[in-house]
This record gives sequence, structure tokens and C-alpha cells, in this order.
Amino acid sequence: MTEILFSILLPEIRELVAEGNRPALNTFCREVHPADVAEAIRQLPAEELTRFFDLIDPEPGADVFKHLPDSVQLELAPRLPTRRLAALLSEMPPDERVDLVKAIPEEALEAVLPAMAHAEREDIRRLAAYEEGTAGSVMTSDYASLPPGITVAEALERLRHEAPDRETVYYVYIVDREHHLIGFVSLKDLILARPTQRLDELAHREVISVNAADDQETVARLIQKYDFIAIPVVNDDGVLVGIVTHDDALDILTQEQTEDLEKLMAIGGSHEPGVYLAKSAWLHFRNRAGWIVGLAALEIVSGWIIHSYETALGHLMILALYMPMVADTGGNTGSQSGTVVVRALALGELKPSFKDILRVLWKELQVAVLLAVVLGVLSSAKVLFLSHSSYIPPGFSLAAIAGVIGLALAIQVVTATLVGAILPMGAAALKLDPAVVASPALTTIVDITGLLIYFTTAKMLLGI
Amino acid sequence: MTEILFSILLPEIRELVAEGNRPALNTFCREVHPADVAEAIRQLPAEELTRFFDLIDPEPGADVFKHLPDSVQLELAPRLPTRRLAALLSEMPPDERVDLVKAIPEEALEAVLPAMAHAEREDIRRLAAYEEGTAGSVMTSDYASLPPGITVAEALERLRHEAPDRETVYYVYIVDREHHLIGFVSLKDLILARPTQRLDELAHREVISVNAADDQETVARLIQKYDFIAIPVVNDDGVLVGIVTHDDALDILTQEQTEDLEKLMAIGGSHEPGVYLAKSAWLHFRNRAGWIVGLAALEIVSGWIIHSYETALGHLMILALYMPMVADTGGNTGSQSGTVVVRALALGELKPSFKDILRVLWKELQVAVLLAVVLGVLSSAKVLFLSHSSYIPPGFSLAAIAGVIGLALAIQVVTATLVGAILPMGAAALKLDPAVVASPALTTIVDITGLLIYFTTAKMLLGI
Repeated sequence: MTEILFSILLPEIRELVAEGNRPALNTFCREVHPADVAEAIRQLPAEELTRFFDLIDPEPGADVFKHLPDSVQLELAPRLPTRRLAALLSEMPPDERVDLVKAIPEEALEAVLPAMAHAEREDIRRLAAYEEGTAGSVMTSDYASLPPGITVAEALERLRHEAPDRETVYYVYIVDREHHLIGFVSLKDLILARPTQRLDELAHREVISVNAADDQETVARLIQKYDFIAIPVVNDDGVLVGIVTHDDALDILTQEQTEDLEKLMAIGGSHEPGVYLAKSAWLHFRNRAGWIVGLAALEIVSGWIIHSYETALGHLMILALYMPMVADTGGNTGSQSGTVVVRALALGELKPSFKDILRVLWKELQVAVLLAVVLGVLSSAKVLFLSHSSYIPPGFSLAAIAGVIGLALAIQVVTATLVGAILPMGAAALKLDPAVVASPALTTIVDITGLLIYFTTAKMLLGI
Repeated sequence: MTEILFSILLPEIRELVAEGNRPALNTFCREVHPADVAEAIRQLPAEELTRFFDLIDPEPGADVFKHLPDSVQLELAPRLPTRRLAALLSEMPPDERVDLVKAIPEEALEAVLPAMAHAEREDIRRLAAYEEGTAGSVMTSDYASLPPGITVAEALERLRHEAPDRETVYYVYIVDREHHLIGFVSLKDLILARPTQRLDELAHREVISVNAADDQETVARLIQKYDFIAIPVVNDDGVLVGIVTHDDALDILTQEQTEDLEKLMAIGGSHEPGVYLAKSAWLHFRNRAGWIVGLAALEIVSGWIIHSYETALGHLMILALYMPMVADTGGNTGSQSGTVVVRALALGELKPSFKDILRVLWKELQVAVLLAVVLGVLSSAKVLFLSHSSYIPPGFSLAAIAGVIGLALAIQVVTATLVGAILPMGAAALKLDPAVVASPALTTIVDITGLLIYFTTAKMLLGI
């Protein structure tokens, strides 16, 4: 939607809300796509938003509500009258509804649930049982399923009745009496088939499905790999319990990517995408400060290493001047190798197996040596160029010092590159999130290795 | 697909290829999902892959081929016999086909194109005309379109004929005689409607479409926002020229996310996802070295700043020891603010408008001050703790020096956080990619500001 259309949409809605013009607001919101309405109103103050959802009918209301960011939904829910919230929840898609219900404070929930139909309460209870981040937690129960014994004509007739309530009817799942998943047909197959053909002749039997306990990112990657519109979710007994749809896959990948990116920069918190402005400065601070303060504390180690070489540095000041260069270059190259490995793990290209760890090490060693040669030579040249007029104590030569700094930097580049690659592989092997080995953490770690390399090299070759 | 199934798949295929058993290979590859076959064979040596595609029929062959990474496709294409490559290309989906054709060297192409049907050559020529990264460059021409005047029954009859060749028939686009896009119906609408109803009564008229010149990431975000299975693409005259489908959206977002992440770490190159192992060490080196070497050169500026304070540092060595801490902390906090702003820009939450720049500055200023207070106090404490036995020249006190270092670090944190946030906003305002203001680049920039702040503060307060 263009900026211009947008600047018309919001004032119009605000006016209708201010007037309390229920019929006009409902007509207006049925004509505009609910995603656009949600985008327009999401930054309104909570009072105005509450009034909006109090005026709009539950059905278009739920369509708008589900497009609001989670944090806005959560702020809004307890402000709505109980009956209004119950009506909204009844109209929302099961998967979005359960996310909200799980986040609402218990006391608000206790008032709302009894106001909903029994079947819906059961549905919420069932979906809420799945752990956050699993296929079960993102699937919807609004899928179309049919028994194998009916004909194509009968199947189409049944779909006509069910379709308005189903999130997608483009895949229809074939289940037996105990609701075991035994196959699927696409709506395209049904359209192409003879009306008298039986479903079990038509069904694809090798269904690719996921378990409800599978990781949501794995599920999204399968939808991407196979170009699916939806993937069926089964429990341990092979019973169909839900589906994850293509739009969920997009949202999961966006969420996971935001998480990876923020973790790489040592940012904590919920990693909800698209709420930069909505989040308070205090929350931003809390999400960012954790690691950064922890790392600043860890830097005591590098401070202590420097301190223990203080006398040597006092004697050969030029070494102190090039400490930041060694630290920075190590941090940069380590972050690069870490990033590409984290990404390859996220995309499923690398597995944390012993074989893949060796492959990564070999690849990175080659890259590291190339980088080390170039950067080592460059930094030696830099020392010669910048410090040509520096004071060099008797017994040392600038050329020797430049050579030692270049060599130390080269060793540091190799070490940092390998550390950057091996830490995420190791984290993955320990079933930890590879991205927790964030770039700032890596920077702090290779700072320590870098200083040790720097001073050890200088000690051995210059005899400081 | 599980690891176990996989370890059966590849040996079976290799055996059939080695035997040259054409019928068995074709039967086998029709029974397994082509995405799984592609994943199994992608790491085979080029000779074996060539032999595989020489043996397999063009139709299942094209299904497997399109699931291979672009770089593998490109390596393979010139090795295949001309007629074989032409047959593969004829069977590939138009959008995937054109990507490959654009990448194949001209001389190989000149042999292949004449071996293809005229209509397909035309299709390639038309799609190839769109600039890389636009909606036109990722759309497919295999969509279903119908005139408005026919009935639902006629529409379903026509779809039955067209469906096998169309990438999706779940949305059907309604076009006039000049192929202007005037509406759409979903297959679900068609199933639910009375067979005698006319399409123009049923069609949704407010079609959300994109222009062929629009950015591919914008298109993917629209598909995500509206939960579409496909979005129509029109030219400047409103003529329907193609569609972008939900699976394209997933691939575009994966590609863009890989690009953002790699750019944030100053990694160049094609940013193709999922080819970490396939890429040679030399290519990895080239992609990573560019910026890193450039930044190492830029560090001459910070080297020069340090050099100009060399005498002062010689007098007050303790200042030199805490330079790396100030540089690192600034780099970390600047990278954090840069990352969240880059992400908010990528998700469309922030626009590079004057208003949003002010909003970001205000938000980051608050976060920065909070971080500055905590980190400033922490680093003063660190100096007092680590350097309690250091030599302090007469006229200075450790407490004063610790205070100055903490203050300088606090100013540096505020500066770095604001610089980190403002650079991507500025880049976006200049229509540059915000992610080019990569974390290593930011680190190098705030190194320079950090040293200036550090020495200026020390000069003014300690009189060095």
C-alpha cells in the first residue's frame, strides 16, 4: 500500500471511531484489506485502539486484530470488555488465537474463557499444550480432511460446506477412522480427476509430514524446500493434529532471522520482528545491556593481561600503540567466519557432525591463511609508514618490530577465523543455538587470544 | 528427510548412474521428491552429475535440476550436451529457467537457444529483459488467466485443460482483451460458486498487484503481509505480465536475509544461500578480504591519531592500556544499534524519512545514555581494580584517571550508538543498502571517534 493511500486511511478510521459510527466503520473496514487497517492503526494510543475494537464487528475485527504485532495484541486484550474479547477470540484463526491466549495474564483469561463455546475452549487447550517453538505451537487446526472411501464428486461437495471455515482447502488430507494421516490430494488433483473416481485411488501416499514436537524452523525450511502451501503435522501415533501453512513459514523465517541477527549482535529479549519503535527505550536497554555489560566484565581478563605486560610496554611503547589494530582485525575476521558458519547451520547446509566440523576447519584454514598473509603484510607496512619517526630504544629496530607486529597479527587472524568458525559448530553440537556465540562475545574472546599471541610473539622474537 | 533415508538415497542413485541404467534411474527418481534427489546429489563431482542428467528424462530431470543451487546449475549447464540442456530448459519453470540462461556464458547459449521452441525462446527473451532484483526478474509466466464474460462452469473446464502447465491455479486472474488485470478469483471461490454464475460477478476487483520494476524484497513482504499464495505483476500500462508465488517469497527472503547478514559482517560476493561448502576457499577469501583490507587501510587514521599522542602516552602509559577497551565497547554498542535499525528498515517498520530519523535518534539517545551510565561506571571501577599498583606520575591520581577513562567511555558509547543508528538511516535516505554500513565498517569508524573522544577528554581534564 502506498504512503498516499495510507495517509487517507488512518484519518478516516480515527474520525469514524471518534464519532462512534459503528455501521460506517464496519463498512469501511470490510472494503480495505485487514492487513492495511492493522498497519494504519497499530500506532494509535491504546484508548483509541480499544474503542476501535469495541465498535467493529467481531468478524472483520478478528481479521484486523490478527494482523497486529503480538505486543500490541497483548497490550490491548486486557483493556477490551470480556464479551468483546471472547467474540474476537472466537473469530480468530486457531493458531493466532492460542498465541494470544498463552500470553494473556491468567486473571484476564479466567473471565474470558467461560464466555467462549466449549469446542473453542477445547481447541485452545489442545493447541496450548505444545511447547513454544515447536510445529505444534504454530500449526492451525482449521484444515480440511476426508475419508478415503468417497468419490471426487462427494469430496468436492463436502469441501463446499467446509471451505469457508478452513484456512486452506488447496490441500485435503486423507485420514482413516482413527484420524491417522494416510495421504493427501490437492484441490488441483480433484479438479482434474473424474468425478466418479475414489479418493484412495487419487491420493498421494508418500506424504511428507512433521511431528508436532519438531522445531518450527525445520518445518518452515521443509515448506520452503518442497514449495508446499501447507505441511501436515502428526503426533507420535501418526494421527493428524494440524497443518502449518506457507504464510506461517514466512513469519517463522522472519522471526528466526531477526533472532539470529540480534543474537549475533548480543541483543537479548523476545526478538519479535517489526516492533523497534513500539519497544520502550528501557526495554531496548535491557535487551542490549545484558551481554555488553557481561562482556565488559570479561574484558577484565584482557585488562589483566595488558597490566601484566605493563613494564615491557613502558620500555617499548610502540607495541602499546598497535594493540587496538590487532584486536580489531581479529574481531572482524572472526565475526566473518562465525557469521557464514551460523548461516550455513541455519539453512541446514552444515550439520554439527564431526565430518562437517573437519570440513569447516579445512575450508576456514585456507581462507584464514590467505587473509593472514594479506593483512600481516599490510600491517607491517602500516607500522613502517606511521612510526618511522617514533622513538625506538637501543637494541631494537623498527623493521624488526614491524615484522613482529605483522606476524602476530597474521597468527591472530588465523586463530580468530578458526575460533569464529568452531564456536558455532561446537554450540550446535551441544544443542545450543549457534548464534549465541555472538559477534561481540567473539570479539571479546579473540581480544584475549590476540593479546596473548601479541605479547608471546614479541617476547620470543624481540626478547621484551 | 531424515539422515538415514538420505544415506540410502545417494548410494542407490550413484549405482544406477554408474551402471548407466536409464529406466531404473527414471523410475527411482519419479518415486522420490525431486528436492530430495537434488539435495542428495548436489555434492557429487561434476562428471557424475553430468552423467546423471544425461541419463534421466528431461521432465523429472528438470524438476531435480531446478532444486540444485544456482552455482551448481551454472557449473553443470555448459558440460551437458546441447540437445540435453535445451530439453532440460524447456521443462524448467520459466522463472528458474531465465535465471540460469542469464548466467550461462554467451557462447554456450548460442548453441542451446536454437534447439528450443520459438515460444520458449520468446518467453526467455521477455523475462530476461527485467533487471535483476525486480519483481519482473523473479516472476513466472505460468499463471492462469481467464476473460470476465465466462461462467464458473466454463472457467473450471478451461482450468482443467490448463492446470497441468500452470505453477498455481489456486488464484485465477481475470483480464480483458488487452490483457489488463481487472480482477481475480480463487479456486476456492470457484468451487463455492454456482456453476452458472459469471466470473465478473464473482471477481475481486480491488486486486493488490505489484509493478514489474518493484524491488523483489518489497514483493515478498507484500505476499507475507497479505498471506497470499501469489501476487500478480503488471507493467506500467496495467497489463498482467506474470505472478510471483509464495515459494518465491520464501526464497527471496532467505536470499535477502543472507545478504543482510553477510553485508553486516562486511562480506561481499553473490550472497547465494546454502553454498558455504560448495564455494572455494579462494572465493570465500575474495568475498571477505575486500572490506577487511579496506578497513585495515582506513585504520591508518586511528594509527595516526595514536601516533600524534605518542609523547603524551609515553608520559601516562596507563592511558594506552585502556585504549582497546574504549574501542571495543564503542564497536559493540554501535553494532547493536546499527543492527536493530537495519532490521527495522528491512521489515519496512522504519522509512528513511526525516520524521523517522528523529524518532530513531530520540529512541537511541535514551538507550545510549542508559548504556553509557552503566558501562562508564563499570569501566572506572575496572581501572581502579586492575591498575591499583600501576605507576602514576606525580601530579595525577588513579581516581582522576579512572574517572576520566569512565567518562570518555560513556561519551564514546553515546556517540557510537547514535552513529550506528544514523548511518543506516542515512544510507537508506540516499537509496543505498542500509546493511552496507557493516559492523566492521562501523567498528572502524567509531574507533576513530573513540580515540578522538578519549584523547580530547584526557587532554581537557588531565591536561596531558
